[in-house]
Amino acid sequence: MASGQLSRAEALACSGCKHACHVMLYCDTKSKLFGKFPIKHIILMQMRFDGLLGFPGGLVNPTKETLEAGLSRELLEEVGMDVPILVEDHVDSCYAPGSSPSSSSSHLITHFYVKKIEEEQIKEVERACVCTAVDHGQEVLGMVRVPLYTMKAGGGLAPFLSHAFIGNARFQLVNSLLHFNLLAPEELHKALRQSLKTHTRNAEDLQEALARLEAKRKQF
Amino acid sequence: MASGQLSRAEALACSGCKHACHVMLYCDTKSKLFGKFPIKHIILMQMRFDGLLGFPGGLVNPTKETLEAGLSRELLEEVGMDVPILVEDHVDSCYAPGSSPSSSSSHLITHFYVKKIEEEQIKEVERACVCTAVDHGQEVLGMVRVPLYTMKAGGGLAPFLSHAFIGNARFQLVNSLLHFNLLAPEELHKALRQSLKTHTRNAEDLQEALARLEAKRKQF
Repeated sequence: MASGQLSRAEALACSGCKHACHVMLYCDTKSKLFGKFPIKHIILMQMRFDGLLGFPGGLVNPTKETLEAGLSRELLEEVGMDVPILVEDHVDSCYAPGSSPSSSSSHLITHFYVKKIEEEQIKEVERACVCTAVDHGQEVLGMVRVPLYTMKAGGGLAPFLSHAFIGNARFQLVNSLLHFNLLAPEELHKALRQSLKTHTRNAEDLQEALARLEAKRKQF
Repeated sequence: MASGQLSRAEALACSGCKHACHVMLYCDTKSKLFGKFPIKHIILMQMRFDGLLGFPGGLVNPTKETLEAGLSRELLEEVGMDVPILVEDHVDSCYAPGSSPSSSSSHLITHFYVKKIEEEQIKEVERACVCTAVDHGQEVLGMVRVPLYTMKAGGGLAPFLSHAFIGNARFQLVNSLLHFNLLAPEELHKALRQSLKTHTRNAEDLQEALARLEAKRKQF
């Protein structure tokens, strides 16, 4: 899929590499937003400690535990409950964009998993995140659902895709929507193109905020 | 503060206008991220149904209820618990950017409040959001904390400020950090400038995701 894509076996053979595992937990749902827009699927992402959106997970040491056991351990810390991840939930492994090519010890390989669970389990995960997870308020600043619908005025998936994501999390999300048939390809494509426009408008808003802050500081 | 700023009384005198009230709930905290970076304050924002970040609140009809009673009602729906908002928590009122100037009925006036509560109450709000709030999974896709620190590699406030926000929520956040002395002005200023750079890098990442999606679609 990505340039730098590896099989799980090839990735594990890279002994000097660091490994990170992340998972997209999702479910089907019949619920509708405002009784009108089908929500279709509930997908969980999180606001990370570094201010970026990403999937739950973290670093795993494959010399000490399997990738999947390590990911389950990370999930226990971040979402506060036991969600067993299996080898068959693995989607892909690839070199993380931006990792230094100069020394093998700084190579980071990211392993991505997708796991479908029941709607009641998704809700249980959301509750456990704030009620029992040790990482709440530390590595995790909050769990959010991904809106897959597009409202009349353009709200929904497009603005969501224009946020700032860690590493290749945005592509992992988009690719999973396609790969697991969670959204029609043309709908996804349209939302992604629209998100570029939202992103451009957002730059103007950000510049205005900076200008207004500078004006205020001069008043002091 | 803003162009289009009004006193509370002037805003209420605009009979044909729509009114929206939002509140920044926050507390002080002595906790540190990874036992190292002082978190200083916990500020709550939310991922809205439209995929944008904003503060809790919503539309209020001042002919039927006070602005503050209306805001408390909205909070009960969105955060699932009673958080009484008082007139003295009011920070400013202003015409919402982007509202049409052609007809008074489409004028939107946004009223912004800031309320400091105890750390235990903030945590209670976070739990109530997912455990009891009727709007969870509907108007609200998740509650997140705002990172005020800046880490060595730049993570924290700067990336957070580069997300997509509703209306003037980003400026309301930035201005409140300044107004309530929650962050040193130079630290805030630096983060905002840095967030512009993050935002530009983000555009490249978004374009790459779109290009990769197009390449994948051609494979089918």
